[in-house]
Amino acid sequence: MKNYTITVQYDGTRYKGWQVQKSTDQTIQGKLQNVLQTLAGHPVEVIGSGRTDAGVHARGQVANFHLDEHFSMDEIFQWLNRYLPEDIAVIAIEEVDERFHARYHAVEKTYQYRIHTGIVPNVFERRELYDYKQPLDIEKMKKAAELLCGTHDYTSFCGNRKFKKSAVRTVYRIDVEKKGDEIRLTYSGDGFLQNMIRILTGTLIEVGNGSRELEEMTEILEAKDRARAGYTAPPQGLTLLHVTYEKDW
Amino acid sequence: MKNYTITVQYDGTRYKGWQVQKSTDQTIQGKLQNVLQTLAGHPVEVIGSGRTDAGVHARGQVANFHLDEHFSMDEIFQWLNRYLPEDIAVIAIEEVDERFHARYHAVEKTYQYRIHTGIVPNVFERRELYDYKQPLDIEKMKKAAELLCGTHDYTSFCGNRKFKKSAVRTVYRIDVEKKGDEIRLTYSGDGFLQNMIRILTGTLIEVGNGSRELEEMTEILEAKDRARAGYTAPPQGLTLLHVTYEKDW
Repeated sequence: MKNYTITVQYDGTRYKGWQVQKSTDQTIQGKLQNVLQTLAGHPVEVIGSGRTDAGVHARGQVANFHLDEHFSMDEIFQWLNRYLPEDIAVIAIEEVDERFHARYHAVEKTYQYRIHTGIVPNVFERRELYDYKQPLDIEKMKKAAELLCGTHDYTSFCGNRKFKKSAVRTVYRIDVEKKGDEIRLTYSGDGFLQNMIRILTGTLIEVGNGSRELEEMTEILEAKDRARAGYTAPPQGLTLLHVTYEKDW
Repeated sequence: MKNYTITVQYDGTRYKGWQVQKSTDQTIQGKLQNVLQTLAGHPVEVIGSGRTDAGVHARGQVANFHLDEHFSMDEIFQWLNRYLPEDIAVIAIEEVDERFHARYHAVEKTYQYRIHTGIVPNVFERRELYDYKQPLDIEKMKKAAELLCGTHDYTSFCGNRKFKKSAVRTVYRIDVEKKGDEIRLTYSGDGFLQNMIRILTGTLIEVGNGSRELEEMTEILEAKDRARAGYTAPPQGLTLLHVTYEKDW
């Protein structure tokens, strides 16, 4: 068996998220596994760097899987792009050490959240935007974003109330930039809890629209209480941009 | 009454084209007229610079309409963007001379046709691309494109076999450029016949894939016979980029 890593892009609009579910075959992992199974003749497990929620997109999701040696890398690559649905594409493939694991060995993830603040809709990119339609105070959002970075227990920003493990994560950067009619929030961290980026985004939007004060950021973190943070921004504005691994893999 | 001109963007995927039809309300003109009627309280005719086919997109379609003086331009603009479907947007509005007519006074139109030639799908822009999936000889296409420019009777490139008026048009330029996995054909002319750009594109693709010789281009034009030209490339690759008017309007 050989171990392959692939870089995957998807328009998440039609999907119930990354992870295979019993109740639906509309998942990204499920589609990848099905197409690889038709190639291999037996089930193939595809391991993603992490789950993405229903409706969330990816430009650089990373996954790995093991496959019989007699398939060439080019064969696998072409097979995947020929039989995957048109809203999922494999943009790169590489052979890696047999011990490489896309989830365990990821050291940093970068996500982008795009908020459309103008009144004129963006017709061609609307599926990748949260159509907020109102102006936001970007300077306040920048200051709040800074307060939310660092190494913290992010329980207040976790959408899974039954989450039992450590909620300590390190958020390296949250860049806030205005681009035309949009505000783009780019998050880098060593990992993110369920819904964490969408709740961080909802909270930053509440700062930007004046319904929350900057000072609350530290209190929210300290409270370790989901109810203290802002709303969960909708999934369609969120895209997983890339996953970083240590160089020796 | 005041005369307004609007610049309209649309993702044509869900529509039966620009022009109002009795059998369906899924047309761009129809959607615009409906939204203006709810504002004005009576039917409003929206005059486009020209029709676009079912499935064709626009980034700069131009249209005009007359409306009672008591609406402010800002009111009209906001009303349109609030009530139009999310795949149609009005990006600009201007008051013009009462005699201005979006079709009669258009002097130049620019369209772009995007052909995806790579095997890796473009997941996020797939609705604006013709997914051709095979390489094309761009140098040959450039030469053929040159032969198809100029002032000619374009009957061979007209999809409407019952067309009775003059089929003489001037095509100023056809730019052929490679951009990543795509070949982009940009057409400028004083006007285009029904399906003309899609048939020109189909013919250029046949030159690019080696099934037609460069020399045929002049013969096709001279034949004035639709059967001599290439196939009609699918609508989803085509976008109306902009419409030019003389400066004094």
